[in-house]
Amino acid sequence: MHAITIPEPGGPEALVWDEVPDPVPGEGEVLVDVVASAVNRADLLQRQGHYDPPPGASRYPGLECSGRIAALGPGVSGWTVGDQVCALLAGGGYAEKVAVPAGQLLPVPENVDLRQAAALPEVTCTVWSNVFMVAHLRPGETFLVHGGSSGIGTMAIQLAKAVGAKVAVTAGTKEKLDYCSELGADILINYREQDFVEEIKRATDGAGADVILDNMGAKYLDRNVRALAVSGRLAIIGMQGGVKGELNIGALMSKRAAITATSLRARPLDEKAAVVAAVREHVWPLLADGNVRPVVDREMPMSDAAAAHRVVEESGHIGKVLLVTP
Amino acid sequence: MHAITIPEPGGPEALVWDEVPDPVPGEGEVLVDVVASAVNRADLLQRQGHYDPPPGASRYPGLECSGRIAALGPGVSGWTVGDQVCALLAGGGYAEKVAVPAGQLLPVPENVDLRQAAALPEVTCTVWSNVFMVAHLRPGETFLVHGGSSGIGTMAIQLAKAVGAKVAVTAGTKEKLDYCSELGADILINYREQDFVEEIKRATDGAGADVILDNMGAKYLDRNVRALAVSGRLAIIGMQGGVKGELNIGALMSKRAAITATSLRARPLDEKAAVVAAVREHVWPLLADGNVRPVVDREMPMSDAAAAHRVVEESGHIGKVLLVTP
Repeated sequence: MHAITIPEPGGPEALVWDEVPDPVPGEGEVLVDVVASAVNRADLLQRQGHYDPPPGASRYPGLECSGRIAALGPGVSGWTVGDQVCALLAGGGYAEKVAVPAGQLLPVPENVDLRQAAALPEVTCTVWSNVFMVAHLRPGETFLVHGGSSGIGTMAIQLAKAVGAKVAVTAGTKEKLDYCSELGADILINYREQDFVEEIKRATDGAGADVILDNMGAKYLDRNVRALAVSGRLAIIGMQGGVKGELNIGALMSKRAAITATSLRARPLDEKAAVVAAVREHVWPLLADGNVRPVVDREMPMSDAAAAHRVVEESGHIGKVLLVTP
Repeated sequence: MHAITIPEPGGPEALVWDEVPDPVPGEGEVLVDVVASAVNRADLLQRQGHYDPPPGASRYPGLECSGRIAALGPGVSGWTVGDQVCALLAGGGYAEKVAVPAGQLLPVPENVDLRQAAALPEVTCTVWSNVFMVAHLRPGETFLVHGGSSGIGTMAIQLAKAVGAKVAVTAGTKEKLDYCSELGADILINYREQDFVEEIKRATDGAGADVILDNMGAKYLDRNVRALAVSGRLAIIGMQGGVKGELNIGALMSKRAAITATSLRARPLDEKAAVVAAVREHVWPLLADGNVRPVVDREMPMSDAAAAHRVVEESGHIGKVLLVTP
């Protein structure tokens, strides 16, 4: 098969479409003929040499895919060769075939195109596990998501609205904020022109956000704590703004608030399977009935993954950038 | 009645035993004839002018008491004049009488002396709400409590052992660590001579602590994060080591860990009542059967609260210092 390899870490040109051996599904795994994968920010870090795959994972990038089951490894039940699926991966999605633990497979939801389903696993699993399983966002609460027009952001807006929360977003352009509004966002904050702490307080009669989903890390830490409501929960899933930041524990205590920081990729298989099962139970029905949909900016050829990485690095996109196999 | 007043914030001598008007129980409150109160570190801050009582609370210090019900305010049921009780207070425990919301009352447990019951409300409510209701310490997990010989520490050791956790403590002297050991602590760390991160890792085959109860705040923030296990929970309840500290979000994320910071005093009545109800359900039976007991360093006259504050400031005590009314 072909896969995107990274002979030497570096810029987008480090991504090379090369012929490699087919993966072999192990105990409890299935082999998937990949139709599409999608670009995640973690892939950019891996390309640069800053994010090694966890032990046992494919060396090729790609944290999600959609496709058809090509073969079942030993001990797999409940799936059949030919099934249309999407999957959460620890790596290897940028390839024509990938071996996946069966617990990380999801059926392609009704009403969703097979290629577009590649946009779903990372964002649904990340948003559901953080915003609902960890931070327990409840109907009527205020939810703030940074980067509202990103893949994560566009799914977070839809899921939070679906459970009856009030949704605030930050984004950097009017076009992106308009798109967030179309998805249902109630409070639109242009982070280039506005102070998100002030804006969220103004929009909530001074109360602040009950749950914040953050991809910026250190750069936003102090402001996120200030933007939290009493009993607020800050869920950090990215560190695009740095790793180490000053925490005002007094401010956190005065709000009786919580901070969590998580990632999906390094979790043990049973935890990933639990997240995937929860997503199938709670999110898949919303996709099937059209209340929630994948947001895809564009589809690009997987063999030119370098071009797709440039798109994501320039942050001009809205939603997910897909990589389609030849 | 008499109460400890603070005419001017300052050292222990700022505490003045003075004649003041009796409190009047409002709707849903009871009046308690106080037999004993206990010193909390928050009282020291209040005496110094650094911790104002929340709106509506008594201006006198004292966050807990034991005594007898002297009168019922309007709308109180389930309690009778003469009942022996202890209570969680938002203030006013350093007095001969105090008005208490009925939801913050607890009966004096069987097998516990009325005076000694004054040592229970703050430590049982703080430990139960943080370690069990928020951090969900489970049987078989490793629990680290800083200041193991403090009032909080001595109760935390006993409750964590009662649920089947492995308990680690830090303290500053061999005498204090020996006492923690008698209470059941498994891992004894002298913070003056040992690195608690190294010691907790050594004692857990490198895994770290699943739950940490911390009273130091900023000074220990980085070390606490390093001492956490994967999926660990750091519950901060004090800031004796400062308010602002550097948080390594990358380290937190690599462990998929959580930080919470809470205090009891400023919570709304319904949240306090929920904590008190949970303590009555889960902790009171352990006290009644003698598996858990209040740890009292000494009893001192309430009129000389200044002397009791000096004892606590010098940190030579183990457990709680009680203040007994004349």
